[in-house]
Amino acid sequence: MKVAVIGASGAVGREMTRILEERGFPADEFLPLASARSAGRTVRFRGAEHAIRELSVEALQGTDVALVSAGATVSRAFIPQAAANGTTCIDNSSAFRMDPAVPLVVPEVNPEALDGDPKIISVPNCTTITAVLPLGPLHRAAGLVDLSLSSYQSVSGAGHRGVAEMVEQISELHGREDEFARMDLSSFPSGPVFGKTIAFNVLAKVGEFEPGGYTGEEAKMMAEPRKILGLPDLPVVATSVRVPVPVGHAVTIIARFSRAITPGEAREILSRAPGVEVRDDPGNGIYPSPLEAAGGDTALVGRIRQVEHDPNALVFFSCADNLRQGAALDAVLIAEHLFT
Amino acid sequence: MKVAVIGASGAVGREMTRILEERGFPADEFLPLASARSAGRTVRFRGAEHAIRELSVEALQGTDVALVSAGATVSRAFIPQAAANGTTCIDNSSAFRMDPAVPLVVPEVNPEALDGDPKIISVPNCTTITAVLPLGPLHRAAGLVDLSLSSYQSVSGAGHRGVAEMVEQISELHGREDEFARMDLSSFPSGPVFGKTIAFNVLAKVGEFEPGGYTGEEAKMMAEPRKILGLPDLPVVATSVRVPVPVGHAVTIIARFSRAITPGEAREILSRAPGVEVRDDPGNGIYPSPLEAAGGDTALVGRIRQVEHDPNALVFFSCADNLRQGAALDAVLIAEHLFT
Repeated sequence: MKVAVIGASGAVGREMTRILEERGFPADEFLPLASARSAGRTVRFRGAEHAIRELSVEALQGTDVALVSAGATVSRAFIPQAAANGTTCIDNSSAFRMDPAVPLVVPEVNPEALDGDPKIISVPNCTTITAVLPLGPLHRAAGLVDLSLSSYQSVSGAGHRGVAEMVEQISELHGREDEFARMDLSSFPSGPVFGKTIAFNVLAKVGEFEPGGYTGEEAKMMAEPRKILGLPDLPVVATSVRVPVPVGHAVTIIARFSRAITPGEAREILSRAPGVEVRDDPGNGIYPSPLEAAGGDTALVGRIRQVEHDPNALVFFSCADNLRQGAALDAVLIAEHLFT
Repeated sequence: MKVAVIGASGAVGREMTRILEERGFPADEFLPLASARSAGRTVRFRGAEHAIRELSVEALQGTDVALVSAGATVSRAFIPQAAANGTTCIDNSSAFRMDPAVPLVVPEVNPEALDGDPKIISVPNCTTITAVLPLGPLHRAAGLVDLSLSSYQSVSGAGHRGVAEMVEQISELHGREDEFARMDLSSFPSGPVFGKTIAFNVLAKVGEFEPGGYTGEEAKMMAEPRKILGLPDLPVVATSVRVPVPVGHAVTIIARFSRAITPGEAREILSRAPGVEVRDDPGNGIYPSPLEAAGGDTALVGRIRQVEHDPNALVFFSCADNLRQGAALDAVLIAEHLFT
């Protein structure tokens, strides 16, 4: 079995490689690929250094499965040909997510979408995964009818460059936190990744603005849960916000169901749900945070409350490692489902 | 006119003093008071240093108006007697906010609640003010029927100690941002103000947990808008989250009205609303952030969109300086309304 990781030098690509090794994926051959810029660098896999090669249709020949995380443009350029050549492509980009012919899969939630040996499979957006992991089992139990999401997304969602931009801005501003309210706005640093200052700030803009005023990220958070949960008409409203956190996404979820559901029943359902860990014991101060989810393979779910005026509605908070659980792990679990 | 600031050494008290001076409040005498711990320190007002005196009922004798920001326990202990002695007490704590006899006032939104020369007036919670400044005029125009709030609250909401705790944790962790996902959780610092690590993290716990699983802060964000807007039965759901930002609160607001309302109409209404500044031009990349609100006297409102499936509902984002617009300015505007 020949396995390629496309975008091997990126934040998610490195995590894919690490998880393939951790979980003992039965790869006989490992092929790290990336753009010309990264070619020649090496990545470590099972104790050996592997040189990254430049991505091309030829380089992919004979590959059984490719885990792809190099952005939508690269996915659009290479995946159709690779799939036609017989490579199963598991794509972390948005390129094919809404293509009706391509399954959009969170393996813990809708593995049945992998039936029929698809050659292209899309991995959802990281924030979608963080929300859908608890929503899937709750929907199966009580029938989801309305959904609101407000996110707290880490800078690593924008890759290494996102983390570096925040780190640099913190170096520049740290020590002057007490003066911010009196400082001139023009004296705050900004960079090409986030536009405005992300250090010590939150930015209600993830992705680009689209007609109607929603961002690309928000459009994904509204469309993708509908497809994954098989609810094409589900009303969803989403607000995506970047926060100065290196790794770990969080999301406030308000979910209305077709019948009454208590926090206790939700905890019971989620305690048996794959990919979810309930961290919800307010009496003992137990609730989840992104830092606790970082490095882990589960969405941590807590703060489950009844919406006061609606016995059919719950509000809760879900946190997951956006590079692992929200991207790389999902891709590897799909590969395992199809090939092991 | 004799004006006292109670809690004069605190984050909000210092801001109150600054705003009284900035706005030329007609104080003939200025009396900074605080706990015994702060007594003897000085605060600057109109070019002179004023020694902080220890708070007591006697020290307040003869004071016309007291701006109070020293926590609910201090307010409960001193305000009833001071009010009985003829001092108008404008209280920033939660002590009297839900008392039916005490008006809860955002002067830009419900100044009529100040009619009748009340001796105790409560200033709402900072996050409530950030939300209610735009909600008030929209409610008057279209009739609010349902409200969801998810907040992004700065550490200065917990006072100087909150800022100091975050700053110290950043000093300890900065430079290792790339390693967080592999670090042991026990190696992250935590402190008495926030319990868990607040640097590089977000914490879905502001205040203490109450029965039902909501925090004290969330309970305020649900009860206070109902009182201010005169909608005692308004369905509200709130999630309060602390973010590693020194100053400036933000909140995602989903508001459903009794009739259809477009983002364009909302922008038009808000462009004439006192205390609000519309920053909403996605085509030109214009949207608000907490850092831009810091030091200012307005709530910056943007990201106004239609909720896709509901022409009666809008979603938007409001940011305000939680020490100024969310607390101290509100108190000074109330004093101006009553005394000038």
